[in-house]
Amino acid sequence: MQPITTIASHLGIDINDLEPYGKYAAKLSESLWDDIEARDNGKLILVTAMNPTPAGEGKTLTTIGLTQGLNRIGHKAVAALREPSLGPCMGMKGGATGSGAAQIVPSDDINLHFTGDIHAVTSAHNLAAAMLDNHLMQGNALHIDVNRIVWKRVVDMNDRPLRRTVIGLGEGNGVVREDGYMITTASEVMAVLCLAENLQDLKKRLGRMILAYSMTGEPITVDQIGATEAMSVLLRHAVKPNLVQTIEGDPVLIHGGPFANIAHGCSSVRATRYGLKLADYVVTEAGFGADLGAEKFLDIKCRQTGLMPSVVVLVATVKALKYNGGIKKDELTAPNLDALQEGLANLRRHIENLHKYGLPIVVAVNRFATDTEEELHEVISFCRGLSCEVALSEAWAKGGEGARALAEAVAQAAECSRVEEEFRLLYPDNTPLRDKIKIVVREIYRGADIRFTPKASRALSRIEEQFGHELPVCMAKTPYSFSDNPKLLGAPVDFVMDISDVRISAGAGFVVVETGTIMTMPGLPKEPAALRIQLHEDGTVSGLE
Amino acid sequence: MQPITTIASHLGIDINDLEPYGKYAAKLSESLWDDIEARDNGKLILVTAMNPTPAGEGKTLTTIGLTQGLNRIGHKAVAALREPSLGPCMGMKGGATGSGAAQIVPSDDINLHFTGDIHAVTSAHNLAAAMLDNHLMQGNALHIDVNRIVWKRVVDMNDRPLRRTVIGLGEGNGVVREDGYMITTASEVMAVLCLAENLQDLKKRLGRMILAYSMTGEPITVDQIGATEAMSVLLRHAVKPNLVQTIEGDPVLIHGGPFANIAHGCSSVRATRYGLKLADYVVTEAGFGADLGAEKFLDIKCRQTGLMPSVVVLVATVKALKYNGGIKKDELTAPNLDALQEGLANLRRHIENLHKYGLPIVVAVNRFATDTEEELHEVISFCRGLSCEVALSEAWAKGGEGARALAEAVAQAAECSRVEEEFRLLYPDNTPLRDKIKIVVREIYRGADIRFTPKASRALSRIEEQFGHELPVCMAKTPYSFSDNPKLLGAPVDFVMDISDVRISAGAGFVVVETGTIMTMPGLPKEPAALRIQLHEDGTVSGLE
Repeated sequence: MQPITTIASHLGIDINDLEPYGKYAAKLSESLWDDIEARDNGKLILVTAMNPTPAGEGKTLTTIGLTQGLNRIGHKAVAALREPSLGPCMGMKGGATGSGAAQIVPSDDINLHFTGDIHAVTSAHNLAAAMLDNHLMQGNALHIDVNRIVWKRVVDMNDRPLRRTVIGLGEGNGVVREDGYMITTASEVMAVLCLAENLQDLKKRLGRMILAYSMTGEPITVDQIGATEAMSVLLRHAVKPNLVQTIEGDPVLIHGGPFANIAHGCSSVRATRYGLKLADYVVTEAGFGADLGAEKFLDIKCRQTGLMPSVVVLVATVKALKYNGGIKKDELTAPNLDALQEGLANLRRHIENLHKYGLPIVVAVNRFATDTEEELHEVISFCRGLSCEVALSEAWAKGGEGARALAEAVAQAAECSRVEEEFRLLYPDNTPLRDKIKIVVREIYRGADIRFTPKASRALSRIEEQFGHELPVCMAKTPYSFSDNPKLLGAPVDFVMDISDVRISAGAGFVVVETGTIMTMPGLPKEPAALRIQLHEDGTVSGLE
Repeated sequence: MQPITTIASHLGIDINDLEPYGKYAAKLSESLWDDIEARDNGKLILVTAMNPTPAGEGKTLTTIGLTQGLNRIGHKAVAALREPSLGPCMGMKGGATGSGAAQIVPSDDINLHFTGDIHAVTSAHNLAAAMLDNHLMQGNALHIDVNRIVWKRVVDMNDRPLRRTVIGLGEGNGVVREDGYMITTASEVMAVLCLAENLQDLKKRLGRMILAYSMTGEPITVDQIGATEAMSVLLRHAVKPNLVQTIEGDPVLIHGGPFANIAHGCSSVRATRYGLKLADYVVTEAGFGADLGAEKFLDIKCRQTGLMPSVVVLVATVKALKYNGGIKKDELTAPNLDALQEGLANLRRHIENLHKYGLPIVVAVNRFATDTEEELHEVISFCRGLSCEVALSEAWAKGGEGARALAEAVAQAAECSRVEEEFRLLYPDNTPLRDKIKIVVREIYRGADIRFTPKASRALSRIEEQFGHELPVCMAKTPYSFSDNPKLLGAPVDFVMDISDVRISAGAGFVVVETGTIMTMPGLPKEPAALRIQLHEDGTVSGLE
């Protein structure tokens, strides 16, 4: 690892504009923005993927590898990634900082407390909750309906029994009521942090977040409870993007980590903006597959900010294609051209969808050792047949060197990109909310019809009445299928989407549309990853890989 | 503020042994310890006080001021203080970083997230809770008695309704049971962090903490639940002391902040040890008055570590003396020699108590503008009459310059101190637990008798049976009186102490003895401090003072 000051100086950042956190991570100060704001923007590259499969597609890996590759071929590139949440590191999956020769470091720190951003979100969120409950106890001057409190508490831990709780038991301990916890990354505060342009915007967004409804059905906001300023104070360092590096010394901005279902699932606007001023290329990713992640990146993040990607990189793997062609997880390493061809329908639909936004696409085939030449050739000619750029990526095995071909394809596509003229959002702002949902379902998921539960239908009407219909929708759907049924792989048609609930995130600025049950608090598995984590005598850590 | 690298270099710390957190705070690395371990120790100065009163005695202020004063008169001194908890900053009291001309900076950062130590304690504590509940749900192989879980969850927030909760409601959400939250500083993890000599010791202490009891009454430890290593990983940066500075540029180690009732209430052993190697004087403080704070500092921290103070500084104020002489809070500014003389009984008893440890005492009279010359003279001659050094401190108004006389008195007392020969603990380790409690009550509080509730009596017997009686006791008592009745001011006699419960903190290594109800989760007041906190456009903060 190089000192973070060295990484920063490669980006032309003055050491006085760095706020170090240990030797290998630093926050970029607000003063840096003043220095670079007037510069031209570099090009934004969005990395997305087919629908995720149990085999893992390597989207983060490809984002890191492509950044390494772009620097390798002489460009100045920076990656912009989400911060891993501590909870899941202790649960199922270990860390989330790439793998093989395409990793970001210091990975143990990044995976755990890092620079404290997620802890700051937890504190700010829970301060609002504590102030709300205190308001209830101290006389409830705002006439809050105790059965319509929509603001849960949060913790960055996989802690199943906190999903549904009762609080306030015992004399002198406030108002007894049902409550529950979400994992911190599901907090609207996290979404707000990631969409805020600056401290002023952050404050406005925090202030309009809805905590509860009054007896007469009026929304009760953070502003009304008086928590806006104190929450902003708690978040004042967390709004600054964090700089780290790849194992090959490329700069990486890692900042914010909102859920990709009930929120928009991409790293912060601030980090993207800083990156575009500091480098020729910012390579960023969006959560889950292109049907969820890219759609939200474009229809929420780009819509709110005016940002637009010059190129979309669509990650595919031979394994994921065969899985979408009906092969079980355990049999994916065996060559199977038929299944692969079957599964290409999934890739085709993502390509078609992304073309609807007027964006040039490069398909990145993340190569696994078990892929046959014949299989790889099949994918490549399929993409070429759709007039789509395609490149193999061997970033896992070879780092930046292995992503050279991909980097060249992306740089060339970016060079030819006419995104300024051709980019279009999926729907205009002033589309009624029901129509927005229909457009996403019809154009992106290709569902035949939509069914709203009475609850969802009532909620939609109430939201339009109270807040109008200018906001984009944020779909909360299973990532594994275009449909709301995780078992419908490939490119399903003729399905009906069930909309179970709709609610507004007034601070983040979108309307969350839930299909099925959305889990906002994961549990620990029978054998949590925490059991394998070790601290060695020399201070090093194992078990987080 | 000077860059933290400058402060460090005055202490002879190599920049490579610093882990910066922003520009004005840094952690001291483990490698620094290897470099300095062989050095001789400086002298340790313990700052304690009379029983606290609503007027505020200025113990932290005096600790900071004395450090400034010692440096001013040519010594190399460092302060060792506790980290403020974020929760109370949002509740009643604002920040906790000194005041006037004796403050530590950057105060807003120190008062809030600082270097993330308290957040790390929260995460480590709650990981054990999540793993415990997961164990229950996954079959309860350890046969944990769900009604004898002693490990609550924690949050660094004043959040009243979390005192008593029910968790695990709903299908698939684990085992339904009663639970509750404490504020993080009440976590045994915090006490362990502050008493651990190094990472290995930390691990051992974490591992033996008791989470619950089995159906057959056996303790269930963190080791048994498998959380020790992962908790250590979460705490691996938090164990490193933090370096900041006073507003006059003196070095300050600020590290750890355990409760002063159910825990021992002083900053970390690590910080004390680092300070003793880096400076001629380490000035540290203990929570509440000398009856609680100093007693625990000596009988717990010094007992466990072999550390001993060369001098004890006992902070007194004219106001506090008058309050102990029966004057109401609002009338303390009016001269009242009679009340002051009456209140001197409180000071006398603290002096007598500290003499029992064989320690030289300097009484620091923290001067307020309303003190009359006559009143001050009365206090000074009273102390001299007890052969006790005494000095006025004007640190609030004049910083280090105002503490020059105090610094000179302390340095001289330290020079003459024969602590190595004369220091003695209040009781030997192998005293039965009931006798230890009796000795503290008789020798320090001067109570006439003790009454154990049947619950406390049973708990004591069970603890002695399962763990022996080698551990010291940690008294949890009102700080406002020598007795367990906060209204008995001055130097009460003939009172009976009621012991309501006894429990073991097996990781911290003490037996907590509760008198009355101990509150481990504060609530927010009607007008929380958070309502006054503001973030200004230039990024500065107000309302935390």
